Amino acid sequence: MLHFRKSLYRLLETTTGKRRGIELAFNLLLITIITLNTIAIVLNTVPEYNRQYARLFTDFELFSVSFFTIEYVLRIWVCVENEKYRHWFWGRIRYIFSTSALIDFLAIFPFYFTLFATDLAIVRIFRLFRIFRLFRISRYSHAFRMIQSVVTDKKEELILSTMLVIFILIIVSSVMYYVEHPAQPDKFSSIPATMWWGVSAMATVGYGDIHPITPLGKLLGGITAILGIGLFALPTGILVSGFNEHIREHKPPQRKVCPHCGKEI
Amino acid sequence: MLHFRKSLYRLLETTTGKRRGIELAFNLLLITIITLNTIAIVLNTVPEYNRQYARLFTDFELFSVSFFTIEYVLRIWVCVENEKYRHWFWGRIRYIFSTSALIDFLAIFPFYFTLFATDLAIVRIFRLFRIFRLFRISRYSHAFRMIQSVVTDKKEELILSTMLVIFILIIVSSVMYYVEHPAQPDKFSSIPATMWWGVSAMATVGYGDIHPITPLGKLLGGITAILGIGLFALPTGILVSGFNEHIREHKPPQRKVCPHCGKEI
Amino acid sequence: MLHFRKSLYRLLETTTGKRRGIELAFNLLLITIITLNTIAIVLNTVPEYNRQYARLFTDFELFSVSFFTIEYVLRIWVCVENEKYRHWFWGRIRYIFSTSALIDFLAIFPFYFTLFATDLAIVRIFRLFRIFRLFRISRYSHAFRMIQSVVTDKKEELILSTMLVIFILIIVSSVMYYVEHPAQPDKFSSIPATMWWGVSAMATVGYGDIHPITPLGKLLGGITAILGIGLFALPTGILVSGFNEHIREHKPPQRKVCPHCGKEI
Amino acid sequence: MLHFRKSLYRLLETTTGKRRGIELAFNLLLITIITLNTIAIVLNTVPEYNRQYARLFTDFELFSVSFFTIEYVLRIWVCVENEKYRHWFWGRIRYIFSTSALIDFLAIFPFYFTLFATDLAIVRIFRLFRIFRLFRISRYSHAFRMIQSVVTDKKEELILSTMLVIFILIIVSSVMYYVEHPAQPDKFSSIPATMWWGVSAMATVGYGDIHPITPLGKLLGGITAILGIGLFALPTGILVSGFNEHIREHKPPQRKVCPHCGKEI
Repeated sequence: MLHFRKSLYRLLETTTGKRRGIELAFNLLLITIITLNTIAIVLNTVPEYNRQYARLFTDFELFSVSFFTIEYVLRIWVCVENEKYRHWFWGRIRYIFSTSALIDFLAIFPFYFTLFATDLAIVRIFRLFRIFRLFRISRYSHAFRMIQSVVTDKKEELILSTMLVIFILIIVSSVMYYVEHPAQPDKFSSIPATMWWGVSAMATVGYGDIHPITPLGKLLGGITAILGIGLFALPTGILVSGFNEHIREHKPPQRKVCPHCGKEI
Repeated sequence: MLHFRKSLYRLLETTTGKRRGIELAFNLLLITIITLNTIAIVLNTVPEYNRQYARLFTDFELFSVSFFTIEYVLRIWVCVENEKYRHWFWGRIRYIFSTSALIDFLAIFPFYFTLFATDLAIVRIFRLFRIFRLFRISRYSHAFRMIQSVVTDKKEELILSTMLVIFILIIVSSVMYYVEHPAQPDKFSSIPATMWWGVSAMATVGYGDIHPITPLGKLLGGITAILGIGLFALPTGILVSGFNEHIREHKPPQRKVCPHCGKEI
Repeated sequence: MLHFRKSLYRLLETTTGKRRGIELAFNLLLITIITLNTIAIVLNTVPEYNRQYARLFTDFELFSVSFFTIEYVLRIWVCVENEKYRHWFWGRIRYIFSTSALIDFLAIFPFYFTLFATDLAIVRIFRLFRIFRLFRISRYSHAFRMIQSVVTDKKEELILSTMLVIFILIIVSSVMYYVEHPAQPDKFSSIPATMWWGVSAMATVGYGDIHPITPLGKLLGGITAILGIGLFALPTGILVSGFNEHIREHKPPQRKVCPHCGKEI
Repeated sequence: MLHFRKSLYRLLETTTGKRRGIELAFNLLLITIITLNTIAIVLNTVPEYNRQYARLFTDFELFSVSFFTIEYVLRIWVCVENEKYRHWFWGRIRYIFSTSALIDFLAIFPFYFTLFATDLAIVRIFRLFRIFRLFRISRYSHAFRMIQSVVTDKKEELILSTMLVIFILIIVSSVMYYVEHPAQPDKFSSIPATMWWGVSAMATVGYGDIHPITPLGKLLGGITAILGIGLFALPTGILVSGFNEHIREHKPPQRKVCPHCGKEI
C-alpha cells in the first residue's frame, strides 16, 4: 500500500526530469481532459450549441468532475510523500490550503455548490480554474518557473508601476472631467465615468465610445496618449532587467583558462 | 519639548528601516485617510452620490483638511531635526519650498482658497495631490527611488525621444493635412485638427472619430502606425538600459579573489 | 556537366560572402520578380485593375510560374552539391521535404492545382509564399538568422507567454460574459463572442464595435487594459534577454592579456 | 576677414563643449525662431487664424526666410573652415550636398519656388524641415547622437523587422480578404483595402471603421492582434540590445586594483 502510494505520488506530482511511458500518458490524458473542459465551458454559452448538445455538455461535465474529484482525493492521500507535508494529519491540512490544492478545489467546487445550493452564474466561472492545471504538468514548467521567479523578484517594482498608472489615471481623468464636462455633460458625467476614457486612452485601447471634443480636451488627450507610450516602457524595463538578472545568476559561470600558461584566470 | 520634537520627527518622516508599532499605526492611518480622500474626491463628482451623501462628503473633507493642516504645521515645526533644514528660521523657509512640502501645501490649499476666494473647479484638482503622499510613506519607497533615479539618469534621452515624437507628429500631421483636407475638409480642417488624428495614430489609440479615407491618406496612415511601433520601442530601450546600468552600479559586487595574493578583493 | 552543376549551385544558393557580378544580377532579378509578383497578386483583387489589366496579370503569372518552376527543378538537380543532400536519390528526396523547398513548391503549386482541379480561393493564397524567398537571398540574411536564432532559443518562453495570453483571455472573457450578458445580450451573446472583445482589449486594439457599458463591466475592462500593458512587456522582456545572450555568445571576445604570463588569451 | 570667418564658423557650427555668451544667445535666438516658425506654419492652416492674422503670418514668413537664407549663405561661406570641406570650391559643393545643408536648403526652397513657379501645397510641407535644425543646436545633441548611433548600428535588424511586418501584413491581409470578402464585399473589397484593416490591427490602432464580422474572420483578427504584441517586442528587443552594446563600448572601463597587493587585476 505504501509502495503504491509512492508510485502514485510520483505519477501525479512529477513535473520535471525524465518521464516514463505511464507518466507521459497520464499527462497527455490530463491535458486532453482540461483542454476539452475549457472548450466545453466556453462553447456551452453559445445558445445554439447549448440547445443542440445539452446532453453531451452535461455528461462531459459529470465525467470531468468525477475525474477531478478522484484525482483531488488521491492527491490529498499521497501528499504526505512530500517532505513539506509529511505529517499524516497536519501535513494534509496544510496541503489542502496550499495554492495549487485550493485551485484544484475551486475547479470542482462549482459543481457541488450548484448541486446543493442555488445556481449562481459567478460560481460557474471557477470551473475555468482547471486551466491553471496545465502550467503544472506542462513541459513548459521550466520556462514558467523562470517567468514566475522574475515576476516575484520584481514584484515591488511592478506593483509600484501599477500604482503609478492608477495615480496618473486618477489625476488625468480628474483634470479631463473638469475640462470636458461642460462640453459633453452626458459622456464625461463624473470622474469615475471619465476614468473609463482615461484607462482606454492610457492603455492605447481607444474604443471610440468616449473621447474629448474641445481643443483643450484634445490637447490633454494627446498628452495622455504620449504618456501612455511611457507607461508601456516602464513595466517592460522592469521585466527586462529582471530577466537579465535571472540569467546572470542562474547561468553556470564560464571557466576561463589562459591558453598559454594553463592557469585559470 | 525638544525630545518630543525628535520623536515626532521620527514618527512623521521615517520611511525606511524597521518601524515600531506606533509608526506603523500612523502610516496605516495616513494611507487610510489618503485613500478615502481620493475615493471621496472622485465619487463626489457622481451626481447621485453628491446629492445623497453631500453632508458626509463635506464633513469628511473638513476632517481631512484639519488633519492635513495640523500635520503640515507639525512637519514645519519638526523639520529642523533634519540636517538639511537645521536653522530655526531659514531652514523652515527652505523646507516650505521643498518639493514634498509644496505638494503638502497644494493638497490643503484648495479648501482655504474656496473659503476665502471664489470656488474655481480647477483649484479643486489640487486636492488630488494628496495621493503623492503615498509614495513617501509606502514600503515601496525603495522601488520608487530606483525608478525615479533611472528616469532622472535618462532624462535627456527621454526628453529627446518625446521631442522626436512631437516633431514626427507635426510632420506626419502636416503631410496628412495636405493629403486628406480636400477629401474631408470638415474633419481634417487644419494642421492642429489633424494632429489630433496624428497623436491617436502614433500612440496606437485610434478612437475612430477621425481617420483617413483616401488611398494616399490610408498609405500614410499605415506608415504612421508602423512608425508608432518604433516609437514605443525607443523609450523602452532607453529605460531598459537605464535599469541595467542602475543594477550594475548599485549591486553588491560578487566576492572575488585576487589571483595574485589569493585574498578576497 | 558536373562543373556546370557546381556553378549553378553556387549561383542559386549563395546567400553570403562576396558575390560576383552574375550572382548579384541573378539576385536582383529574383528580388524584382518576387516583388512584382507580390504586387500583382495584391492588385489583382482590386476590381478595376482586374478588369482593365486582366491580360497583363495572366501573362505575368504565366511567366512567373514558368520561371519559378524552372528554378525549382534546377534547385532539385543541383542540391546534391550540398553535403547534406549528397545522395543522388535520397538526398534529393530529403531536399524536396526541406522547409525552403516546400515553400518553393507551395508558391508554384496553386497554379497547377487550379489548372487541373477546381479553382479554390484559399489555394491562391499560397502564391504569396514567394515573398519568403526574399529572406534567403537578401543581404539581410545575417540579421534574419540572428532574429531567427533568438526566437528559436526563447521558443519555450514565447509559447508559454502566448499560452498565458490565451488563458487570461479565456478567463477575462468568461467573467466579462457573466457581467455584461444581462446588459447587452446581443453583443456579449456567448463566451466566444466575448473573446472577440477580450482579444481586442488585451492587445489594445479597441475597434469599438463591442465594449462594456455597465459600471462593473467597465471596471473589468479597465483592469484588462492595464493587464494588456503587462502582456506587451512579457514577450519584450523575453526577446531582449534572448538578444543579449545571443550577442554575448556570438561576439568576438575582446583581446585580453593573461595577467600571469603577459601573453594574449 | 579670415579671422572673422573663423569666429563665424565657430558661432554657427558649435554644438558641443562650453559655449560663451554670444553663442548661447545665438542658439536661443535660433530655437525661438524655429519654434515660432513651426507654430506659424501649423496655425496658418486654421481658417480663423489665417483670415485674422494673414498679414502677420506673411510678414513672419518673409522675415524667417530672409534670416534662414542669410544663414544658409553664411554657412556655405564658412564651411571651408571644416577639415572635411577645406577646398574653396569643391569643399563648398560637397558641403551643399551634405545632409544637413540639404535640409537647410529644403527649408527655404518652398518660398522661392512659390515665388517663381506655381503654389503647390506639397512644396509648402518642406518648410517644416526647419524643425530638424533643433537637433543640431540643442543641448541634447549628445543624447541625439547616441540614439542615432544605436539606430545606425542596428539598421539592418530594424529594416528586416520592418520588412517582416510588411510581409506578415500582406499575408494576413490576403487571408483576411478571402475570408471576409464574401461577408462584407464593400469594406473588404480588395487585398489593398484589407491591408488598411491589417495595418491598424497589427499596430493595435483599431479605428473601428473596418473590422471582421464572420467567426473565422474574428478568429484571424484575434490571432493578428496577438501577433501584433510580438511585433512590438521585436524592434524593442533590437533597440535595447543596441543601447546595451553602445553603453558597454563607450563607457570608460573601470580600473580594478586588488586592495591587498596593490596590483591591478
